[in-house]
Amino acid sequence: MPATSLSERARTVRSSAVRDLLRLTEQPHVLSLAGGLPAAELLPADRIAVAAARIIGESGRSVLQYGPTEGSRALRETVARRLGEGATAEDTIITTGSQQGLDLLARVLLDPGDVVVAEMPTYLGALSALHWVNPRIVGVDGDADGLRTDVLAERLADGLRPKLVYVVTDFANPTGATLSSNRRRELAALADEYDFVIVEDDPYGSLRFRGDRHPPIRRWSERVVTLGSASKILSPGLRIGWLTAPDWLARAVTIAKQATDLHTAGLNQQIVDDLLNDETWLHGHVRDLVRNYGARADALSGALTAHLGGAVEFRTPDGGMFVWARLTEPGLSADRLLAAAIDAGMAFVPGSAFRHDGADAGTLRLCFTTQSAEDIDEAMRRLASALATITGAPAQNRG
Amino acid sequence: MPATSLSERARTVRSSAVRDLLRLTEQPHVLSLAGGLPAAELLPADRIAVAAARIIGESGRSVLQYGPTEGSRALRETVARRLGEGATAEDTIITTGSQQGLDLLARVLLDPGDVVVAEMPTYLGALSALHWVNPRIVGVDGDADGLRTDVLAERLADGLRPKLVYVVTDFANPTGATLSSNRRRELAALADEYDFVIVEDDPYGSLRFRGDRHPPIRRWSERVVTLGSASKILSPGLRIGWLTAPDWLARAVTIAKQATDLHTAGLNQQIVDDLLNDETWLHGHVRDLVRNYGARADALSGALTAHLGGAVEFRTPDGGMFVWARLTEPGLSADRLLAAAIDAGMAFVPGSAFRHDGADAGTLRLCFTTQSAEDIDEAMRRLASALATITGAPAQNRG
Repeated sequence: MPATSLSERARTVRSSAVRDLLRLTEQPHVLSLAGGLPAAELLPADRIAVAAARIIGESGRSVLQYGPTEGSRALRETVARRLGEGATAEDTIITTGSQQGLDLLARVLLDPGDVVVAEMPTYLGALSALHWVNPRIVGVDGDADGLRTDVLAERLADGLRPKLVYVVTDFANPTGATLSSNRRRELAALADEYDFVIVEDDPYGSLRFRGDRHPPIRRWSERVVTLGSASKILSPGLRIGWLTAPDWLARAVTIAKQATDLHTAGLNQQIVDDLLNDETWLHGHVRDLVRNYGARADALSGALTAHLGGAVEFRTPDGGMFVWARLTEPGLSADRLLAAAIDAGMAFVPGSAFRHDGADAGTLRLCFTTQSAEDIDEAMRRLASALATITGAPAQNRG
Repeated sequence: MPATSLSERARTVRSSAVRDLLRLTEQPHVLSLAGGLPAAELLPADRIAVAAARIIGESGRSVLQYGPTEGSRALRETVARRLGEGATAEDTIITTGSQQGLDLLARVLLDPGDVVVAEMPTYLGALSALHWVNPRIVGVDGDADGLRTDVLAERLADGLRPKLVYVVTDFANPTGATLSSNRRRELAALADEYDFVIVEDDPYGSLRFRGDRHPPIRRWSERVVTLGSASKILSPGLRIGWLTAPDWLARAVTIAKQATDLHTAGLNQQIVDDLLNDETWLHGHVRDLVRNYGARADALSGALTAHLGGAVEFRTPDGGMFVWARLTEPGLSADRLLAAAIDAGMAFVPGSAFRHDGADAGTLRLCFTTQSAEDIDEAMRRLASALATITGAPAQNRG
């Protein structure tokens, strides 16, 4: 151990026991519903190969050269047009995945000790990005309609003064909940009344199996930053995300991005722009994704009911990638269940991983995108058997 | 102006007058020697197109999927093997350009107020990356052999206690100087004695026209982080850089990178790995770059002498991308000269842009990579005419 030492923030990064456990899920006999990945077999590799060849052939000298920090004009226009609601290319910045959007927003908005409200449970990576500026994270519970805006309103009336409120609007990670239109309007009104910035993160909105999409929160307030991403629809490995922000904030984000990675890879931006503008192809591709994911979501719901019955509560999702399940027996630890599940040959992520305070001990996030219906059924059979191991009861195997 | 406000660090980012001036250089009639770009016509677009097609065809499902935060095992092995000096894949992390390497090191090493020593003048982007953690930047002068290690030794003996010392080792930006082998050894010994981390940044080392390469500083100390990049040899637009660090630091950088952008684009990593391992092709490609850049460097030296004569002092470089020139008439401002030069149809970067304190008023960075020999000659003719305008003397045009 050298005397040369890490910064205070680097020393206080939580080492994650769950992350260590999840390494074990990479063994081939483990059916993993843990990682939040799109299905590899549905990645549009052939279409991307065509785009890459054309773009390097026609524009190699520009896409392989240094480019503008805020991103390619063409992709920024495409993103703004798709978002609508008054979004413009000028207020849109291309980021190295939407994870970078969160990191940049944390830097340019937050001083140490500033209050950030996040729906609890929430996307762990958002909390990781915020960690580096040392804010005070305040969790507000959500339900089937997303963040409880009535609870937030009470906290604000009691004097809570957040600088930023973070929500995943559609089919949230980990709960699968979608913020209702009423609550979007209420949240926007609170932002205007109490002068905070809303970060609406929407990576999953296009993956809707049923029902209609809600308008983005930006319709109702100018204090909104909208984060988007190509990761769940086109390809996570290309690392293309974007954000649309009020102009005073977009300028600051651009300056911060220049110091962080100069700009996002040009070839990757043009590939995404090409695919987003091939509307006939895109429509068919998203329809395929939705059909496949919808079938897998239904398979998971069916298997949970068949193999675990009353031992878990969950909602069948209307879109996205996740089912959030709660163990009905009080006091059961999902962390302990995970260890038994890995022994039985399946994996999930315990809900405690999605809270800043590590609570929610009896919850599980199950990702249905990367396994076939048959493997999902088998994984739930194994989960039931693992649950029987830790409770001592026989597995409720009705399948 | 909304009450919602930027973070303290975002508010203190210097708005750069030079950057605003440089926007004017994008006009087509301006011959720009300002940007530090590789020559677009020498970017290996055809070879990259071949690599992209093969990689997406063979490994689309993996390179387009989420990948490991530390980077692809294959590229990390390639980088470690090329670096040698005991470097291993385990201690090597692939970054989104080496700019990101600087940003991550700042985060995991520096607390506000920590001392950073940088050779002055230095790469502006390094100072931008450090700005966000609010360190105390201490400049130490360099000369033709790079950082004055004797001056640094005196400062250390007087009580200066840096946490990090930053040097661009070969053909530095902006001065073109290369740190001598003796000084590398001395700097390593000082790091061990005073327990600081050396960041050796080497984007230009392969672009050597004359003479032999020096060993990296890491040969002489374990307190060294080596930064490298594909930007100057293969393509900046791919945004692939890397760093090799002591293991305690590599682990912290990986955790910080996960919060920042999850990982660097997989396709781009595999393209770079493919090109770096095609040794016959790579050797020929670098030989072409060196031949072209060497000829352009000689053209710039000749044109400076022909058109500006005794009005400037400079060294003909042995490699890299830059000539650093000093106006011999005392009190002349390169910022003022730039305004006149743009009017005359050429551009450079004033030396003040490469200092944290804005000093070095009478120096110019001239990048010779992106213009032909003929255009370089014409640009120097225009520079001489601009100089005549601001001094009132006739242009010393001997060309």
